Amino acid sequence: MPSVKNEQLFSKLAQQSKASSIREILKIIQSSDVISLAGGMPDPVTFPAEEIKEICIKILANNSSLALQYSSTEGLLKLREFLAQWLEMDVKKFTTDNIIITSGSQQGLDLVSKALLDPGDIVIVELPSYLAALNAFRSYGAEIIGIPMDEDGMIMEIFEDKLATIKSKSKKAKFVYTISNFQNPAGVTISLSRRKKLLEIVKNYNLIIVEDNPYDKIRFEGTPLPSIFSLDHEGYVINLGTFSKILCPGLRLAWVSGHQEIIEKIVILKQATDLCTSILNQLIAYEYCNEGLIDKNIESNVLIYKKKRDVMLESLEKYFPAEASWTKPEGGFFVFVTLPEYLDTDTMLYEAIKEKVAYVSGSSFYANGKGKNTMRLSFCYPSLEDIEEGIKRLARVITNYSSSLKGGNGS
Amino acid sequence: MPSVKNEQLFSKLAQQSKASSIREILKIIQSSDVISLAGGMPDPVTFPAEEIKEICIKILANNSSLALQYSSTEGLLKLREFLAQWLEMDVKKFTTDNIIITSGSQQGLDLVSKALLDPGDIVIVELPSYLAALNAFRSYGAEIIGIPMDEDGMIMEIFEDKLATIKSKSKKAKFVYTISNFQNPAGVTISLSRRKKLLEIVKNYNLIIVEDNPYDKIRFEGTPLPSIFSLDHEGYVINLGTFSKILCPGLRLAWVSGHQEIIEKIVILKQATDLCTSILNQLIAYEYCNEGLIDKNIESNVLIYKKKRDVMLESLEKYFPAEASWTKPEGGFFVFVTLPEYLDTDTMLYEAIKEKVAYVSGSSFYANGKGKNTMRLSFCYPSLEDIEEGIKRLARVITNYSSSLKGGNGS
Repeated sequence: MPSVKNEQLFSKLAQQSKASSIREILKIIQSSDVISLAGGMPDPVTFPAEEIKEICIKILANNSSLALQYSSTEGLLKLREFLAQWLEMDVKKFTTDNIIITSGSQQGLDLVSKALLDPGDIVIVELPSYLAALNAFRSYGAEIIGIPMDEDGMIMEIFEDKLATIKSKSKKAKFVYTISNFQNPAGVTISLSRRKKLLEIVKNYNLIIVEDNPYDKIRFEGTPLPSIFSLDHEGYVINLGTFSKILCPGLRLAWVSGHQEIIEKIVILKQATDLCTSILNQLIAYEYCNEGLIDKNIESNVLIYKKKRDVMLESLEKYFPAEASWTKPEGGFFVFVTLPEYLDTDTMLYEAIKEKVAYVSGSSFYANGKGKNTMRLSFCYPSLEDIEEGIKRLARVITNYSSSLKGGNGS
Repeated sequence: MPSVKNEQLFSKLAQQSKASSIREILKIIQSSDVISLAGGMPDPVTFPAEEIKEICIKILANNSSLALQYSSTEGLLKLREFLAQWLEMDVKKFTTDNIIITSGSQQGLDLVSKALLDPGDIVIVELPSYLAALNAFRSYGAEIIGIPMDEDGMIMEIFEDKLATIKSKSKKAKFVYTISNFQNPAGVTISLSRRKKLLEIVKNYNLIIVEDNPYDKIRFEGTPLPSIFSLDHEGYVINLGTFSKILCPGLRLAWVSGHQEIIEKIVILKQATDLCTSILNQLIAYEYCNEGLIDKNIESNVLIYKKKRDVMLESLEKYFPAEASWTKPEGGFFVFVTLPEYLDTDTMLYEAIKEKVAYVSGSSFYANGKGKNTMRLSFCYPSLEDIEEGIKRLARVITNYSSSLKGGNGS
C-alpha cells in the first residue's frame, strides 16, 4: 500500500479521526455478561415489529417497483408532507421544501457540518454534549468550544461573553449546537426563557442554531416546551428530528428542517454523499405514520421508559453514596451522575467492567476535556431488573474505588 | 437567516457545489411522457419483490430485535463473510476486516474521498467518467484530471506522461478512479494487459487505484476478466461493489474492500457520517444471498439486459445517421454515442425533449469539459418497445437538428 506508514496517504482531517474509546469499550461489553448502562439504544420491546411486517408485506406486494428503486435525494414527498403537518411547520410557513429526509440523524449532523463548516470554524456546544455530534463537527476541522450548563441549559452570560471574545479575535463562530430536550448526556431541558434568550443572542451575533431534538416526544411528565425551531421565524434554526427513538433505529430515518436555502444546499451535498435514503424504509415509516400508529406507539413507549427512569432514580437513591448527585430528567434516555471531584470515571470504568456493569465516562462528552468525575447512565435499553442490579453493582464499585483511593496505594 | 446572501454562511466547498443539470432534467422527464434513455436505473422487473417479501416476513417474525436496532458501523458480519467468499477474496488473503458495508456505492465514493483527499489533491479519471463520482471527488476539493480512453480503456502513455508532469510540478495525485468493466458512460472494458500496466504504473508513482465495479456481473458475452483488485497483492487497489445493479437499489447496499488500514479509516469516518447502514436491509440482502438466490437472479437479469442491449444496438444500426458511431458494450447498462463534431448534444437535448425522448449529454461526464458531440444512452430501464421507439425519435432529432444547423439561422 502506498506510504500509509508516514500517513501521507490519508487526508489531513482523516488523519485526525481516531476510533472512539467508547466504541471500543462498547464492543467488549456486547460480548459479555456485563449489565450495560452505557449505550443509548432503544429497548427492542418498543419496536412495532408486527405492524412493520404487515406494512412490508403490503408495500412489497403492491408497490415494489417504487420501493426497491432509486429515489429522490430530498426524500419521499408524502413522508415529508406527513412530517410538515405532524410537526406543525405551517406555523413557520414551512413546507416540504424545508425538510430533507436523512439516513439517520448522524447524517443530518454530517451534512449540516459539510454545508456550514470550514476547517478552523468555531462550533459552540453545551458542556457536556453528544459525543457523535462532536465527532461529526471535528471531522470537518471545527474548533469546538463548550459552554457550561445549569439546570435550565447553557448559561447565557458565559455564552455571550464567549461570542464577544470570539468576535474580538476576528474568528468565526458558525453555529451553536444544542439538544434542547432531555439533553444527551446531561438530561437537562432548556427553559422557555433560555430558549428565547438563545435566539436573541444568535441573531445579534449572526449565527445559526442547530437544534437536535431526538427525545422531544419521550416526555414522562411536565409541560412540553416549544422547540427553539418553532420560536424562530427568520430561518436562524436548523432542526434535527429522528425516527430512531420513536419508531426504531434500524430503518436509519431522520430529518433536517430549516430555511429553504440551507435545505437546498444540504440536498446537493447529500446527492454526492449517498444519492438517496432507502425508499423502502421511507415507505415503511410513511405507512406506519399514515395509519395513525406513530402517536400511539410513542404513548406506549413513554410509559415503558418512564418506568425505567423511575427504577433508575429509585435505585440511585437507594444504593448510591451520599456524595454522588444526579439529574432527574423529565424525559429522554439518560441520567447524568456527578461524583466527588477526586474520582476519575475513566479509570473507574475498568473496575466497573470487572464487576460486570458499564457506563459511559463523562469526559468523552466534554469538549474541554473536563468532567472526569461524571458519568452517563442510560435506562433505555436494560430491563428493570438489570437497571436495579446495575446501579447496585455500580454503587459498590464507587464505594470500593473511593476507599481504595482514600486508603492509598497500599490498601 | 444569517448572511446567506453574501455566501458567508456556507463552507467554501459547499459554496462550490451546485445542483447537477442532469438531475434537474431528469426531474422534468420523470413527470412527463418522454421516453427516457437518460437515467441509469435498473428495470424493476429484475427486482425479486416476492422473495424479498418472504425474507422480510421471516426476519421481522424471528429477528426483529436485531433487525430494527442500531448496528455495527462495519456492517453485518455474516453479510461481509458471504461477500468475502463470493468475491473470492481469500486469493488476496482478505477477510471480513477488509470489507465495509456502505449505504450505496455513492457513500463508498464519499468515504474514500473523505479518507484520502485534501483540497487541491489530484484525482485521475477516465474521459469520460461517472458524473456522481466526479461530484463526490469535487465535494472534497479535488482537482480532477481526465485521461482519454480507446477501446481497451485509459491510454497508458498519456496516463504516465500526466503523472510525470504532476510529479515535476510537485503536486500530489492521490488516486486514479476507474470503472473497469462496461464503463459508465462509455461502455468500455479495460483489457487484461491494460489492467496489469495500470497496476505497474501506480506502484511506480505510489498512488491508489479506486476500482468501481458495479456492472462486473452484468456480462452478456465474452470472457470475464479478473478485476484490477484481484490482480493486486500489495493493497494498492480499493474496490467498490454494489447490490444496486444485481439485487435492487432501494436497499442502498454496497461495499468497499481494500487494505485493512484503509478500511479501518473508512469505518471511523463512516461512524461520524451515518453511524451504520440499515441492518434490516443488510439482513434482507444476506438472507437473499444465503438462500442461494443471488447468482440465479443475476443470471436471469443478464438475459433481460442482453435483450435490451441487442434491441438498442439494432435500432441504432437501423435508424441512426451514418456519421454517428457508438460503443458495443459486452455488458452493463450503457451505449455511448459519438456524433459529428459540429453537433452539441447539450443544446440538442431541448429538441429531443420536445420530441419526447431524453438522453444524458456527454459533456457532463468529461472532466475537461469536452465531449460536446457525445451522449450516453441507457438501455437498462425502458421497455424493448420504448428502446426502439426512443432511438427512432432520437435519430429524427439528430437529423433535423443537424440540417437546421447546416441550413443556417434562417431555416
